[in-house]
This record gives sequence, structure tokens and C-alpha cells, in this order.
Amino acid sequence: MQQYPPNIEHIDQDMLKVEVNLDDTPGEWLGYVMEKLFDAGANDVYYTPIYMKKNRPAVQLQLLCSKELLTEIQSILLKETTTLGIRYYPITVFRMERRTRKIKLKWGEVTLKEGLQDGTVVKVSPEYEDCRLLAEKYGIPLKDVYAAVWRQIEVGTT
Amino acid sequence: MQQYPPNIEHIDQDMLKVEVNLDDTPGEWLGYVMEKLFDAGANDVYYTPIYMKKNRPAVQLQLLCSKELLTEIQSILLKETTTLGIRYYPITVFRMERRTRKIKLKWGEVTLKEGLQDGTVVKVSPEYEDCRLLAEKYGIPLKDVYAAVWRQIEVGTT
Amino acid sequence: MQQYPPNIEHIDQDMLKVEVNLDDTPGEWLGYVMEKLFDAGANDVYYTPIYMKKNRPAVQLQLLCSKELLTEIQSILLKETTTLGIRYYPITVFRMERRTRKIKLKWGEVTLKEGLQDGTVVKVSPEYEDCRLLAEKYGIPLKDVYAAVWRQIEVGTT
Amino acid sequence: MQQYPPNIEHIDQDMLKVEVNLDDTPGEWLGYVMEKLFDAGANDVYYTPIYMKKNRPAVQLQLLCSKELLTEIQSILLKETTTLGIRYYPITVFRMERRTRKIKLKWGEVTLKEGLQDGTVVKVSPEYEDCRLLAEKYGIPLKDVYAAVWRQIEVGTT
Amino acid sequence: MQQYPPNIEHIDQDMLKVEVNLDDTPGEWLGYVMEKLFDAGANDVYYTPIYMKKNRPAVQLQLLCSKELLTEIQSILLKETTTLGIRYYPITVFRMERRTRKIKLKWGEVTLKEGLQDGTVVKVSPEYEDCRLLAEKYGIPLKDVYAAVWRQIEVGTT
Amino acid sequence: MQQYPPNIEHIDQDMLKVEVNLDDTPGEWLGYVMEKLFDAGANDVYYTPIYMKKNRPAVQLQLLCSKELLTEIQSILLKETTTLGIRYYPITVFRMERRTRKIKLKWGEVTLKEGLQDGTVVKVSPEYEDCRLLAEKYGIPLKDVYAAVWRQIEVGTT
Repeated sequence: MQQYPPNIEHIDQDMLKVEVNLDDTPGEWLGYVMEKLFDAGANDVYYTPIYMKKNRPAVQLQLLCSKELLTEIQSILLKETTTLGIRYYPITVFRMERRTRKIKLKWGEVTLKEGLQDGTVVKVSPEYEDCRLLAEKYGIPLKDVYAAVWRQIEVGTT
Repeated sequence: MQQYPPNIEHIDQDMLKVEVNLDDTPGEWLGYVMEKLFDAGANDVYYTPIYMKKNRPAVQLQLLCSKELLTEIQSILLKETTTLGIRYYPITVFRMERRTRKIKLKWGEVTLKEGLQDGTVVKVSPEYEDCRLLAEKYGIPLKDVYAAVWRQIEVGTT
Repeated sequence: MQQYPPNIEHIDQDMLKVEVNLDDTPGEWLGYVMEKLFDAGANDVYYTPIYMKKNRPAVQLQLLCSKELLTEIQSILLKETTTLGIRYYPITVFRMERRTRKIKLKWGEVTLKEGLQDGTVVKVSPEYEDCRLLAEKYGIPLKDVYAAVWRQIEVGTT
Repeated sequence: MQQYPPNIEHIDQDMLKVEVNLDDTPGEWLGYVMEKLFDAGANDVYYTPIYMKKNRPAVQLQLLCSKELLTEIQSILLKETTTLGIRYYPITVFRMERRTRKIKLKWGEVTLKEGLQDGTVVKVSPEYEDCRLLAEKYGIPLKDVYAAVWRQIEVGTT
Repeated sequence: MQQYPPNIEHIDQDMLKVEVNLDDTPGEWLGYVMEKLFDAGANDVYYTPIYMKKNRPAVQLQLLCSKELLTEIQSILLKETTTLGIRYYPITVFRMERRTRKIKLKWGEVTLKEGLQDGTVVKVSPEYEDCRLLAEKYGIPLKDVYAAVWRQIEVGTT
Repeated sequence: MQQYPPNIEHIDQDMLKVEVNLDDTPGEWLGYVMEKLFDAGANDVYYTPIYMKKNRPAVQLQLLCSKELLTEIQSILLKETTTLGIRYYPITVFRMERRTRKIKLKWGEVTLKEGLQDGTVVKVSPEYEDCRLLAEKYGIPLKDVYAAVWRQIEVGTT
């Protein structure tokens, strides 16, 4: 398994998509399971509404993780959900070159995540948690914090 | 409460939409609940996927019933789901004039449901259960039974 | 029915929400129906995925229209979908004071929609179709046109 | 407005359902908005996936609140989302008689929420946050905490 | 293709996920198709709401089957739906060790499905159809049958 | 890479499924992105509602394209959405033998798409855009144009 510095553009061949269909796990538990899976190192965890046999509205849990995490992820799914089976397949992940930097708003600092192509920044977005903290601290709309960020950044063709 | 012959075009002012949000009822039970609600006389019962607090994928059960059924419907919802509260509001229902008649396919008879405006048939659809029975009895695709029906009917402008 | 100049903050008591559940209309027709309903003057038309009896994945069509449009809207729904019944209920709509103005980007003009509270602009968003035209004309990402807009606008607390 | 002790079975006529359709608010902000709305006293807040014009996957925010909260709720929606309009309608809420009590598991106490009909407990469920704390403190599956609760409770006909 | 006794923990490398996107098949037919696919031996069949071009709300049918079933499954999809193309990819399935046993409730017997890790039962759930039969026979809530089961079982850490 | 005449039954081994999860791209942009992806040659593009961490309702964009299109598709996704990563996996596509022919309705011509198995037409559907043009030109329901088509065609067992 070849290792890349995580922020350089690369293609990751060591990832799995893992899936379970859940028609007898209450939604209440699924919010909890999501946290456990992120804590264990899953790169992404998300739910899709599905419709199963016998008129059952149900949920598909999907997650992305590196192959080496599979055993731990399976163990969580078996412990925390009602499933008796777990499905997975390899998935290739292309990741842009990434970089972070900080900018100053009048309320405080916000981290920017930048995506680069051929050394040029083509994509910028503020760190949600930073914006949220400022919004809550100063009692301003989150939207206005984002707006303040956007006024300071230049991307791509603009 | 004014009564209309059910097949004449009319506006029904005596219907309710009933809703419950369910984040701790497993999908497995919900297929069952749907049947109980139809058995009790609900006009329609359906599920919508929703997303609730604490990252919970959940389900909204909605149903239509006449006002006089409310007590019985509530009783089923309280017994068969985990909800402690039930919400409802009046909903007006416009219903087209309806009529049924039978047609003969080479495999047997199928009931047609017709919708009329100003005495003219503007809408025709075969009864699903009739088509299904023929499809299963003769081992033919359901789609082909419908196709055979469509070849025999004329509607609206056509 | 009291008339308000459409751009002044007001509460509209003359609106209806109209709903139909569709389990035998193919998706292909529904894109078409949406257009017809907007053409007829519906204020909003949207689809929600639902699950109906007999394991049928289905679609709920919902729309908002003024009460006086109801007859025309019903007529379209009866002609263009397979439903035999249409449901509706009154819905109150609060509308912010609105205003439009134009700004200049390096590629051309874009209309801004502004929302005001107590005479202050608290919300600004560019007209999608304007941004789209510039993006297509100059071969630039739509996202970059929006970014260029955001850099020029000041809202609310920012 | 008549006041009921909150835990007695009653029908609440003072509630509103509030709705906004959002096709230009990023999902990232919507998690934040949900919190603000609950903090302001909304009884329930949830998201439904919808499909809007111009091929836009979008989200309907729905919430329940008492009529007297409407002004504050509207203010949050106008500040924190991109909507220029807010829709609402009255909704009746039936609420079961409720009671809480505590039980002891081997790991600690858990609050039970009970629903009563005619003085009899017909529904029991443990408080999620209590179960979650025990699960995290003792490193056991959440599911096992619930199972331990279920072994101690008797409901309805059982 | 290596064969495992179905109830022993194993990893199945001979499964496929099959997918079709359906924007011109009415929901009414899809309930029927689901049955045909289960009858043919599919391990799982489920529907996901999707949004396709031209504003079409549509449905993705997904199913799991063993590779050797592919020809039969394809044949059903081509006959019963409107699709002209079928997509598939291999998917690995981990299956827990399983066992069933019966327990006695006061209304009758219910089968339990148990999942085992390293010889220990870590997961138990009652057979839905057994519970349903008892609920219907004795006119009791399904939920109460499940509750009666839960009071008799011990799992995992509890 | 072996080339098949596109209309002959064949199995295509050169296709990819590409996926991105989007929780910070507004729905407004996604309608636009869909067009760009189809213009670039994607065979299918569709959206699925998903639920991500931090209570975010979000969207999964999925598309099918040939392997040789991957670079161009990636470039569009990176330019037009907010994602920093793109996931993909090979997917096999079975395609039926296809043929088109024209039929005459009283309003004009419509193209039929036919699917064949072993030289026999087992599936026929009209070209949506043809039907739509006739419906709009003559002010008739789209449904009636389809009905007129169905009356003229014979398929499979019928």
C-alpha cells in the first residue's frame, strides 16, 4: 500500500465502500452509530432512504474507509446495528491537492480549505466549525459569516 | 355531514390529514401498521423519508381519513407505533366522477376504472389486482397485460 | 381578496397547498407536468418521494397557488396525471419585502434579488439565469460567477 | 389560549406547521439552522428531500411550534436561510398522557418515558441521552443498554 | 466457487449488486417486480428515490444476488420493467454465524434469529412473520409481541 | 477496449460509476452541473437524497461514463461543485439490442425505441421529446399522446 502525503493530489486505491440495509434498527440508534463510525476513522458515513420488502421504509448506511479499517468498522456495525451481514466493494478515490490558511474577519479568524489544480487555487471554502463559533459568539447569522469570508477570497477565473 | 354517492364528482370537506414523525419505530413494524390503518378504513397511507435531530434518519407516516374515523386511527397509531403525539388538519378532497367497467383480454377479464369530466371519460386505468392475477396465472409480464389493456381503450383527445 | 403590491412585506391569506399522490404516473411525465403547472401560474411545484401500499415507490406532487387558480390547476392535474382525486388546504404565506437591482461583473450584468426587513437589506442573492448565461457565454464555472457576485455585496451584519 | 398541564392527555389547538423550500441553502447551514430552531422552542424540526424546478435537488424544512412563537421562528428562518417567503398553517396536536420514572440497570439509572391511556401505561421508552451516556461510559453497545431496559419493563397486553 | 454452510460466519465473494434506474416505469409495477425478483432468489431487493434529467422523479432498483443468478435476474428486469440496460458490479458479503431457536410467549411460539461472534450470541431478533401472526390472532399490538420477546432474551454485554 | 456497434446486445466492461457527496453545494447549482455532465458525454447523471453528519441534508451525485471520459468528468466536478474528492468504481453494463422506428399518429410522427431479445421485440417505448412536441403543438395532454402510441404497438406476449 503506497502512502501519499495526504494533501498532495493523488489517487487512493485502498478505500472501501461499506453498505448495510437496515429495516429493524430505529432511527434513534443510527445517529449514535454514525458518531461511532466517524470516531473509528471512517472517512465518510451517510444514510440514504430506501424502501424494502413488506412495505418497510428503511435506511441504507453507507461509509467509506481504508481497507485496513474494515475489521474495526465491521465490528461496530455488528455491535451497534441489527444487521447480520455487511457488504463492501473497493472504490477509487481521487483527491485534489489541499491546503489550509487562515483569514481574519472582523469577528476573528477563520480557516480556509483550498483545493489546487496545477498549483492554482480553484476552490476555497471556510471551515464550518470556525464560522459556527463566530456566529454563536457574536449572535450573528451563520450566513453572514460565510458572506464575510466570500468577500475576501478570490478563486479560479474570478 | 353531507353524503355524496361516492362515484359522483364532488368536493369532500370531511377529510383529515394525519401525521406522525417516527424516529424510534423500526421499519419492520411500519409495513404492519400500514395494513392496520388501511383495514380500519384510511383512504390513503404513505411514508416519507425525513431527517430529524441528532442525525436520525426517520419516517413520516401520513394518512387521509374521514373525520369520523379519527378516534380509531389514533388508537391504532398509539398502539402500534412509538409516538406519544399525533397531528392533524382538515384537507379538502376533490374527487372526479368515477365508473368501472370490464374488458376482455385474451387471458381473461380486467376491470377498468374510468374518470369522467362533464360526462366524458378522460382517464382510464386497469385494476392492478386483475392484471396481476392474469400475469401470474399465465406467466406473462405484468407490463404486457397493461399493454394489452391500452390497446383496447380510447380516452380523451385520442 | 386584498391585493398587496407584490414586493412589500405582507401576509398572503389567499394561497392553497395542493397535493396528489402518484403511484401510476411514470417519472417521465412528471417533468412535463411541472412545466405546465408553472406555466399556469403556480407559485411553486415540487416532488417528494413517498412509499405507498403494495411496495410501491411513488411520488407526491405538491404545489402552491392562489385560490383563484385552483380550477385551472385541477384541470391540468386531471388531464396530465393519472390521479382521480386532488387534495388541498389553505396555507398562509409571509413574504419579505423584495427589491431587485443590477450589479456589474467583469463579464456582464447580474440581477440581485434583495430581501429587506425594516428597510434594511438582510438578504441578497443573484438571479440564477443571469449567472448561468454568463457562465455559459464565457465558459467559466457557474460557481465562479456566484463568487464574483458575493465579493461585491454586503449584507446584514457583515 | 387554554393551558393544559403538559403531561395530561389533551388536544392542542395552538400549534402551527411552518414550511420553507430551500434550493439555494447549502446542507452545511441547515444542520446549524435546526439547532437554532430547537433552541428557540420549536417542538419539532425536520428535513424532507424534495425535487424542485430546473433539476434542483432541494430540501423542505418543516417545523412545529406554538402560534406565539411564530414571530421568533420566522425571524430565524429569514436570518439563517436564503428564503424570502415562509408558509404556515394551523395543525391540531393530540398528546397522550405522559409520565417519567427511573429504573436501575446494572450500569446506572435510565429515565423511562411512559404514555398512558385511561390511566394504564401502554407505551414505554427509555430516554436516549441516558442510554447513550451509559453506553459511552462503559463502552457497551447502545443496543445492549436498550435491551437491558426492555427486559425490565412491562407494557400494554404483555 | 467455494460453498459455505449458510449459517457459519463466512465471506461470500460470489455476489453481485445489480442496478437499474427507472424513470418510465410506474410505481404500481415496481411492487410487483420486487416480488418476482425475490421469488427468483434475489437476496435483497430495494428501491431508492432518485432525481433524473428533465425534472423526473425516478426510482433506482437495486438488488443483491449470487453471480449464477444473474441471467435469470436480468431476464426478469428486461421483461417486467422498461429498462434497456442493466448495470452490475461484484460485492463482497460478510455474513455472521447464524442460528435459530424457538421461545414460548404466552400466546405461542416465536422463532429467534441469533447472530454469533466467536461462539457467543451477540444479536437476537424475533422472526417478524411469527410475531405478526400472534399479533393478528390475538388482536394485540405487534409492538407488544416484540416487547414480550425482548423480556425473555439476553444478549451481548447485558 | 473492444468496440460494439451500439445497438447490438452487448456487455460493456468499460464503464465507471462516479460518485460525489455534496453538503455544501446549493441545489441551484446542481441542476446546472447535471447539464454540463450530460453535455460532456455522461451516459446517466442522477441525484440521491442523503443524510450526512451534523444533521446535514445533502445530495449524492452519481453518474455513469466510459473510462475514457473520466478525466473530463472529473474536471467538471471539480470546477462546478464544491467537492475536493471524487470516487469511482468499474461497473458492467448489459445493453439490449435496440432499434428505432417511426409510427404515425393523427398529430404527426413519433419515434419508437424498441428493445429486442433473440431478434424479437419485447419492449417498445415512444421517444419522450417527440410526444412532448405533439402535446404542446396541439394542446393535448401528454398522456393522450402516449395512449395513442400504445394503441398502435404490439409487444412480447400480447
